[in-house]
Amino acid sequence: MELSISFTGDSAKYLQIYEEIRQSILTKRLLAHRQLPSKRTLAQTLDVSVHTVKEAYEQLLAEGYVYSKERAGYFIAPFEFDWLQQVQQQNPPTSTIISNDVHYDFHNGHVDNEAFPYSIWHKLLKKHLNNNNLSTSPWEGELVLRSEIARYVERSRGVICDASQVFIYCGTQSQLQALSHFFGPLTRVGIEEPGFKRVRATLQQCGLSTEAIPVDNAGITLPQKTIHMLYTTPAHQFPLGMIMTIERRAALLQWANLNEAYIIEDDYDSEFRYKGLPIPSLAKMDQLQRVIYFGTFSKTLLPSLRISYMILPKSLIASFITFNHEQKSVVSRIDQLVLADFIAQGQFDKHLAKMRTVYRKKQQTLLTAISTHFSEEFQVIGEKSGLHIVMKLPERLSEKKAIQLAQEIGIRVYPCSTSYQHGTDDVLVILGYGGLTLQQINDGIALLAAVWQ
Amino acid sequence: MELSISFTGDSAKYLQIYEEIRQSILTKRLLAHRQLPSKRTLAQTLDVSVHTVKEAYEQLLAEGYVYSKERAGYFIAPFEFDWLQQVQQQNPPTSTIISNDVHYDFHNGHVDNEAFPYSIWHKLLKKHLNNNNLSTSPWEGELVLRSEIARYVERSRGVICDASQVFIYCGTQSQLQALSHFFGPLTRVGIEEPGFKRVRATLQQCGLSTEAIPVDNAGITLPQKTIHMLYTTPAHQFPLGMIMTIERRAALLQWANLNEAYIIEDDYDSEFRYKGLPIPSLAKMDQLQRVIYFGTFSKTLLPSLRISYMILPKSLIASFITFNHEQKSVVSRIDQLVLADFIAQGQFDKHLAKMRTVYRKKQQTLLTAISTHFSEEFQVIGEKSGLHIVMKLPERLSEKKAIQLAQEIGIRVYPCSTSYQHGTDDVLVILGYGGLTLQQINDGIALLAAVWQ
Repeated sequence: MELSISFTGDSAKYLQIYEEIRQSILTKRLLAHRQLPSKRTLAQTLDVSVHTVKEAYEQLLAEGYVYSKERAGYFIAPFEFDWLQQVQQQNPPTSTIISNDVHYDFHNGHVDNEAFPYSIWHKLLKKHLNNNNLSTSPWEGELVLRSEIARYVERSRGVICDASQVFIYCGTQSQLQALSHFFGPLTRVGIEEPGFKRVRATLQQCGLSTEAIPVDNAGITLPQKTIHMLYTTPAHQFPLGMIMTIERRAALLQWANLNEAYIIEDDYDSEFRYKGLPIPSLAKMDQLQRVIYFGTFSKTLLPSLRISYMILPKSLIASFITFNHEQKSVVSRIDQLVLADFIAQGQFDKHLAKMRTVYRKKQQTLLTAISTHFSEEFQVIGEKSGLHIVMKLPERLSEKKAIQLAQEIGIRVYPCSTSYQHGTDDVLVILGYGGLTLQQINDGIALLAAVWQ
Repeated sequence: MELSISFTGDSAKYLQIYEEIRQSILTKRLLAHRQLPSKRTLAQTLDVSVHTVKEAYEQLLAEGYVYSKERAGYFIAPFEFDWLQQVQQQNPPTSTIISNDVHYDFHNGHVDNEAFPYSIWHKLLKKHLNNNNLSTSPWEGELVLRSEIARYVERSRGVICDASQVFIYCGTQSQLQALSHFFGPLTRVGIEEPGFKRVRATLQQCGLSTEAIPVDNAGITLPQKTIHMLYTTPAHQFPLGMIMTIERRAALLQWANLNEAYIIEDDYDSEFRYKGLPIPSLAKMDQLQRVIYFGTFSKTLLPSLRISYMILPKSLIASFITFNHEQKSVVSRIDQLVLADFIAQGQFDKHLAKMRTVYRKKQQTLLTAISTHFSEEFQVIGEKSGLHIVMKLPERLSEKKAIQLAQEIGIRVYPCSTSYQHGTDDVLVILGYGGLTLQQINDGIALLAAVWQ
């Protein structure tokens, strides 16, 4: 076997030897089971050190181009890869550019973009971004954060629990997935009709069957079929916004007890209630026996943080931990520590108090603007709490038409029909106001009225 | 109905009225369907404003304790909640304190805790933590990060793809879950034996069946049964550490093509290879036709960040996007933007180059220490790349015994047997060295040798 290589100055000699031999193998100039020259021989031929040849051979060996036999030397490995030649044609990168002519976005997931305490948060990031916090959190979340959340839900929602019941996730959907896997695909889940479409999608993706349970003015109605788990939003039904009555709450808990079912109480924006006291949560009434409580920091802090929590009844903890012992944390440890510190310092309560005022003003502005600019044909629904309202439009306007008319003048409002599995005759649109300024709310509503009336 | 309230100065009057009535309802002093006094009457009785009474009544109404009839007034709502009385006994918080007498932790998931560029990262956090980045990322991840990753895998691993093929997740397990839901529970997945136990657990939790496929010196062997997806770690098999030969790679790709199966290539620590060139990835050889590529920043940056990525073949993109259109991002947008910027500025490549040197030194120190302190009975396996090696112990030491002896002198080493589904006769322990200093590695190995020899 002859190997002649004209070295260039571009790369290390061993790499050039490696590449030359590799190419010879790939192009079948060197065939399977042929022996390579000994290291000493090739070193002499090429006028390089034995070490250089050794490095090249070891690389070829490591990648499987050659094999070695003890005391005999190196041989070309046998393989076939003609079929690898078909290299896929590359398309130019697809960029996701959305035309940006939206001046007023009434998105219900947006939060106020001025009030967040950036400098405090940033200081805490600096504090916790250090070499003590390099490794992953326990899968359940950081204990300090779980403890702070346990204390927070007790003082804000009356839910008495301890840190061991609190699990940190990266959003409602990751919590639903965890529960779906835990309870298994035979679990039948009742979901609100209308309700969060993402909830239905997530449960179904996990292989669980769902049953649409109608909501009435008192909240979700009692399931009539066999249901093992019921997902509900009692504090501010999504999307319709009613608050579940105490009577319905009691009835639901009784239903859950009788049927040994679980209720998932998604308290997604319970922090923002504008009139009177917060409503007691189902979890408080039940003291976490049949209720699994969902909370999130998406509305209270930043949606982009992706931090949420799930509080389980004590009776489920041991089996949930066993089931998930091979899981890993899904939230940055730094962010968890920052958030825990933020709560511990009292900053979170302070921020919440401030945001309640901010959002109350926004909501009042919205309601005033609506009553100023719209006739009584247009009804407001679900305005007692949360960061969105629903507007019921006269029948002459279809939802699609209303959204399109708004879009044409740079206003984005959101459909309610997608929250229904079985449709509705009402014409309803969702108006979130968290991310808009008072001026924008006023102007946006005036403009909407002009095209919708 | 008589309502007498002695106001205290502790809280707003309307709250005291609300609370008094609520307690009367709960204790059955006020019974269902009884009418409350009119607002005006109660205001006169209590010598407060009508507005104050109105606030109290509206709160009771909102919470469902009372109902209203038009032009008639307010009535006590009918309900039953005696069964709610059983309040669960609270146990004291369980704190997860691990006794901390570990002086040398040879954990394979730890990274160097000095070399991370904290100040650069922190500056980038400051830059991107602002009011443009409040809302959630698209579920696929931030486009800038997806683009940077596409460029990175091309220059580092020869994988040609564009941003639309890259999806951002919060760890290998979240990617496996996404794939499991997408491919569905009828998918049979081949996994490495031995292999990552978390992979098996995650797939099984999602309802998929798994088949243990033995690995030999060339990597995972060809599946003999029907398998739709094959999970493998070609660059540095976990845990044994061999590099898959080019021959085996070609054979696997051929198998995947013939069987229309997919290969998940988990390239979890491919960045750290200490001898010669990096091995071409399966994804490069196949140009992402049958290969789904997994990458992570847990080894290259910080495990605590929880950012990983999955690159899909173009043929799967449309259906994957349709399937997941109701999903939400699972990673902080701020962190995604920081990381994208970090890569774009060339800091990531710089950090990688630095870490290669750091880890190479650590590995050399480890290997030197082992050959100095241990006899030839103790063999090192899988030392060509990555952040861990496997040590094969003489049969007189059981794995359990070896780990216990180490533990007694403050050294933590990790079992290999848990990576096996069907057991092994070999006595193997895993030694990670990423998180230890050179001195700690030296001392730890010397101490280990003293108790194991």
